[in-house]
Amino acid sequence: MTRRYRLKVRFDGTSFHGWQRQTAPDGEPLRTVQGELEFATARALRQPLSIVGASRTDAGVHALGQVAAFSAETSIPTERIPAAINRYLPDDVAVWDASETDDDFNPIRGAVSKTYRYTIFNGVVRPVFDRFRCHHYWNPLDALTMQDAGKLLEGEHDFTSFANANHGRESAVRIVHFCEVSRSGERIFIDIGGNGFLYHMVRIIAGTLVEVGRGALNAQAIPDIIAARDRAQAGPTLPPGGLCLHQVSYDRVLTLNDV
Amino acid sequence: MTRRYRLKVRFDGTSFHGWQRQTAPDGEPLRTVQGELEFATARALRQPLSIVGASRTDAGVHALGQVAAFSAETSIPTERIPAAINRYLPDDVAVWDASETDDDFNPIRGAVSKTYRYTIFNGVVRPVFDRFRCHHYWNPLDALTMQDAGKLLEGEHDFTSFANANHGRESAVRIVHFCEVSRSGERIFIDIGGNGFLYHMVRIIAGTLVEVGRGALNAQAIPDIIAARDRAQAGPTLPPGGLCLHQVSYDRVLTLNDV
Repeated sequence: MTRRYRLKVRFDGTSFHGWQRQTAPDGEPLRTVQGELEFATARALRQPLSIVGASRTDAGVHALGQVAAFSAETSIPTERIPAAINRYLPDDVAVWDASETDDDFNPIRGAVSKTYRYTIFNGVVRPVFDRFRCHHYWNPLDALTMQDAGKLLEGEHDFTSFANANHGRESAVRIVHFCEVSRSGERIFIDIGGNGFLYHMVRIIAGTLVEVGRGALNAQAIPDIIAARDRAQAGPTLPPGGLCLHQVSYDRVLTLNDV
Repeated sequence: MTRRYRLKVRFDGTSFHGWQRQTAPDGEPLRTVQGELEFATARALRQPLSIVGASRTDAGVHALGQVAAFSAETSIPTERIPAAINRYLPDDVAVWDASETDDDFNPIRGAVSKTYRYTIFNGVVRPVFDRFRCHHYWNPLDALTMQDAGKLLEGEHDFTSFANANHGRESAVRIVHFCEVSRSGERIFIDIGGNGFLYHMVRIIAGTLVEVGRGALNAQAIPDIIAARDRAQAGPTLPPGGLCLHQVSYDRVLTLNDV
């Protein structure tokens, strides 16, 4: 009997051309998380299958809790599926949970809430160990005013100003459930949860909060930037390495406690 | 006027052939931390110079606080030396402190105390982000009995059983000031401080504590293993990636509080 399965996946995005399966101009397949995961799962379960992911992360973006789904017929007990797939995965991606789900489960359309963390290393000397997992910004940033600005992004808004012009969605209205900025030593974390995110939205929010933190933009300007619906009014898109998809929920709104 | 400088350096050892300058059999220089640091410092200070490091870490071993020294004549203010050198360093190594020191300062012979951390990832699903910074051991380990065994390594002993046979030192007597095992979620940390460490000593201690933690060796056997002065009595040498040199002190004994 064919069943539908839901996986939770973590990956280091540094060496991937993002989540989505794709080919180079010469037709050669590029190394993608979806591609590797599909290959490993098909091999572990000895059948062709296709995998859909909740979030199409860009090249260099990481994930702790990407959700993916596939349908297959297998005698492997569900609790053994992660180990069976991991055997065939490269060491920068790992499945850490598997469960059975409804036949019509769609990880993209079904998502109720997602959380992301953007990490800024705000010290003079560059980071070494997590250099691919944070954005290095050496001038001092005021995390408290960044937090003030973050609060003003919360709620239901048209986020056109905070999306790449090619976001391709009919509506840019999204709900940001929380946007919390905290500092731990030389690291600043931007934790954000919402019902959905437009193309580059978290990286543009992070870039805008850096403008606030360095004093180039007043936190109180955030409502005007939102109202302008003009990408040029917001800050720059920060690099992908600082971004990590933390969680995707299908049954409840995630809060800061879930980060 | 020629002055002697002391640097503090952090590096991700993953892509280095260890600290010490060396060449491949074909005569080509291998990529080493000492080689990169010497090249960058000479370039920043515009003069040939040679750098000596406190600890000759193996390939794959990391450092937060390696100490290195060189003599040079420069008009660059000491506090600007780290940034001047970092400009020419690759992104997996960074100088984070510089100070003037005595003309005869020798980072190897002058060291009074060193601390290392060995990290074990003790979870079923492999780690992804810090996969080059920990050793993955999936079967359950009892960190409390590992801690008991670690305590029995403290003090002044002949550590022949815990050294690679090629350690090349006249005496294998060393003082371990502390050996502390702690667990944080799926990670087990072995923090160790001493007046000096033999070749592979921390990695063999870590391997022996894993034998204890998995129940293959009784913690109470540690004194007998020390007394045997026989490498074959201790556990295996764990891989280099889990090891990180934390601190080197020239004026006082480091304690667990310094880790």
